[in-house]
Amino acid sequence: MTTFVPPRLDTNPHLPFGDQRTAPFYGKDILSVKQFNHQDLEYIFAVAHEMRTMVHHIGTFDLLKGKILANLFYEPSTRTSSSFTSAMERLGGSVIPINEVRYSSVSKGESLPDTVRTLECYADVIVLRHPEIGSAALAAKYARKPIINAGDGVGEHPTQALLDAFTIVEELGNIDGLTVTMLGDLKYGRTVHSLTRLLSLFDVRINYVSPDILPIPAEIIDELNERGIHQFQSDNLDEMLADTDVLYVTRVQKERFVDEAEYESVKSAYVITPETLSRAKDRMIVMHPLPRVGEIAMEVDDDPRAAYFRQMEYGLYVRMALLAMVLGKA
Amino acid sequence: MTTFVPPRLDTNPHLPFGDQRTAPFYGKDILSVKQFNHQDLEYIFAVAHEMRTMVHHIGTFDLLKGKILANLFYEPSTRTSSSFTSAMERLGGSVIPINEVRYSSVSKGESLPDTVRTLECYADVIVLRHPEIGSAALAAKYARKPIINAGDGVGEHPTQALLDAFTIVEELGNIDGLTVTMLGDLKYGRTVHSLTRLLSLFDVRINYVSPDILPIPAEIIDELNERGIHQFQSDNLDEMLADTDVLYVTRVQKERFVDEAEYESVKSAYVITPETLSRAKDRMIVMHPLPRVGEIAMEVDDDPRAAYFRQMEYGLYVRMALLAMVLGKA
Amino acid sequence: MTTFVPPRLDTNPHLPFGDQRTAPFYGKDILSVKQFNHQDLEYIFAVAHEMRTMVHHIGTFDLLKGKILANLFYEPSTRTSSSFTSAMERLGGSVIPINEVRYSSVSKGESLPDTVRTLECYADVIVLRHPEIGSAALAAKYARKPIINAGDGVGEHPTQALLDAFTIVEELGNIDGLTVTMLGDLKYGRTVHSLTRLLSLFDVRINYVSPDILPIPAEIIDELNERGIHQFQSDNLDEMLADTDVLYVTRVQKERFVDEAEYESVKSAYVITPETLSRAKDRMIVMHPLPRVGEIAMEVDDDPRAAYFRQMEYGLYVRMALLAMVLGKA
Repeated sequence: MTTFVPPRLDTNPHLPFGDQRTAPFYGKDILSVKQFNHQDLEYIFAVAHEMRTMVHHIGTFDLLKGKILANLFYEPSTRTSSSFTSAMERLGGSVIPINEVRYSSVSKGESLPDTVRTLECYADVIVLRHPEIGSAALAAKYARKPIINAGDGVGEHPTQALLDAFTIVEELGNIDGLTVTMLGDLKYGRTVHSLTRLLSLFDVRINYVSPDILPIPAEIIDELNERGIHQFQSDNLDEMLADTDVLYVTRVQKERFVDEAEYESVKSAYVITPETLSRAKDRMIVMHPLPRVGEIAMEVDDDPRAAYFRQMEYGLYVRMALLAMVLGKA
Repeated sequence: MTTFVPPRLDTNPHLPFGDQRTAPFYGKDILSVKQFNHQDLEYIFAVAHEMRTMVHHIGTFDLLKGKILANLFYEPSTRTSSSFTSAMERLGGSVIPINEVRYSSVSKGESLPDTVRTLECYADVIVLRHPEIGSAALAAKYARKPIINAGDGVGEHPTQALLDAFTIVEELGNIDGLTVTMLGDLKYGRTVHSLTRLLSLFDVRINYVSPDILPIPAEIIDELNERGIHQFQSDNLDEMLADTDVLYVTRVQKERFVDEAEYESVKSAYVITPETLSRAKDRMIVMHPLPRVGEIAMEVDDDPRAAYFRQMEYGLYVRMALLAMVLGKA
Repeated sequence: MTTFVPPRLDTNPHLPFGDQRTAPFYGKDILSVKQFNHQDLEYIFAVAHEMRTMVHHIGTFDLLKGKILANLFYEPSTRTSSSFTSAMERLGGSVIPINEVRYSSVSKGESLPDTVRTLECYADVIVLRHPEIGSAALAAKYARKPIINAGDGVGEHPTQALLDAFTIVEELGNIDGLTVTMLGDLKYGRTVHSLTRLLSLFDVRINYVSPDILPIPAEIIDELNERGIHQFQSDNLDEMLADTDVLYVTRVQKERFVDEAEYESVKSAYVITPETLSRAKDRMIVMHPLPRVGEIAMEVDDDPRAAYFRQMEYGLYVRMALLAMVLGKA
């Protein structure tokens, strides 16, 4: 068995691990991307980067030893649930998995505030996934302990947007100056809306490429215009591709279309293949929130610009950062 | 990272943590409230209180480090399952969660004795929730390792009764001399029956307030009469309220009533509101096993006498105590 | 709290715990019994025996502290899932339990390669149970991290075969020279096929006792003939019993029979009772992969030759060994 001497984390002035007095997110909830300013993001990315370094060097460490996460999922999401579980375990903490809520006291009619106030008796932080918009804010209103929103229906999924932005930073060095092209269903895509709002805190240009019937909402266009973000809309990827630094691909769902023929034509027009990438920059990345269902051909996976699996890994670091931060350890 | 020096638990003469020779519950099963005498309860409450102190000071500690709990739930119960999971994790142990038993080998027809004898190959203690009365005793008959009954149908749920009694002790200092009023469905309420039996080991007065069709069973009345407990029955809370030290509220289930109008009138008559509490003692507590579905108005939650969420937390300490005790560490 | 000084595992020349350079299975997948030669089995058994010793002496130890197992079950198997969870926890590691895959991203249509490549971002090793043959090999093709096959439909279940063989070694000292009698459904029994192949690496004699309609497949007979294994077939246990050192009992499933009367007669003919064992050697063992549904009478359980619950425990040690080995710690 090896003896491991941990780095003196508490001597890093930017990441005062262990000192709650200077932990800016200590005790706070993570509910919406709208709660963050530019400085917050820089801080989160710095802590997440430190987490990445720690995991690469030592795998797991005891920053949250003795802390317990209640992982409360009212709807299934293997990816997000596993990511938070791993994040807590890599920080030395423990997890109470609650995935069966439809069979649980919830189905007996208990209110979310009561469930949350019960669980905070057993845990130090609660991650909540819930199908109804506003549920995370409702939970946070009643809970004394931090709530992290892991998706509330058509509402927010802030940790997804944060990991998306962190992926860009880690892969391309920064966000300022980049051209980001959003592709697919931009009308209903929750991840696209949240990421767009986060990116607007930086100096970016954003292209929206979608079928006519699935455009980016006008309110987002207006919101970003007010911040002076350059935005462009098209239904044709080709005219945007050459300048793109980040191609963010999303799924176009069949159920959005009345006419199946229209769905099939849209679907095939927006599939990313090696041929697509042959016309893209050498230094750019392809992202996808996953799961994908044909939007990106598997032949693309071996291209170094295919960042979507690394994106999952960056999600681990962002969630480690958030857990450590709200528990006062970063 | 902080260095933590644990208190010398093993120097406490009342709580000889770590010395199995003097651990009175070492290797025993926790099956029924009937197995405990007054001295046992004093011991359990003392250990649970120590657990409370430890959790408040250090959150988690390594009393059961290396021990594994099989959390075997044949029916869903988020609250109880999460509470045992947290209890084991706060003691530094690990948990094997088994919540999906209807899809598991059980559905292939395996007997409970075989399942339990398999699981004890992997775990040091088994917590069992099962819909059939007597299942915990059956499991204990075959298992070499300790079984803790977490509810066996209409049978027993001893850890619930223990946490209810512990709540009274922690909130009001002791049980002797108190007047406890049980409210709601007293005929089918498993928790009421078990708690009543535990309380009869103390010098208490018990009031039963229920609809006519849902009275406390005669056998319990008889059992407590033999022990000389003062008991009073009524369908009217008002005449009992002023003298009540502990108001134990339970749910009145619609399906118990043939006539819906009768259900509605009973239901509304037994709802606890701030107005109810305005007529109660200043120093009393309102308890509820949860989940509640309207029996206690949410406006009551902020009253310091509302003890039902603290009650959940006391459950954690009682379960920590029981796990440590049957594993020979307390 | 006790202070424990772990043995210097890394000084054992046969079990160089902690030294990845000499760990022969470091980074490898465990997919099929066909991948092992005689020397591999000796190594696995030696490590598993060491694990048994360690668990008996100290229960749990920190060989895999900081490592994370993704326990990915696409179909329920309480026994196998719990065994791997316990194995990882007894080695000081953590587990991400994923038992709800039919509700998860899988049901959104995600491919197994994508799921596995996501999970390996969060975990160090993946245990996979999947209903389709070949799925473990498919997962291993895409994963960078080790995959352990915990059953892929009618394909392989190599850890079951390894624990079966290890049981024989631990119970009877070795495999060479023994007579092993396989009983029951030998046509469809995946465990029988895999174990038979493993045993053929030793100097054994194998008897096959099955109903006429459920014989051992001819390809297995041929395969073992090429290796010079003595094999005998019968539908009558009596003529084989007296010489048997290992009686491996399997379930005969009703759905294999067209004629229910035939099923009933076969079923009752192959039930092991105390009377059966009265005609067996004093030093022999009865094994069963469990769950049993009547093939072995419960009255047999107290006979010291009944090894099927100990067999479950040996499974723990084999899975501890495999996890430690593929993670480079043995």
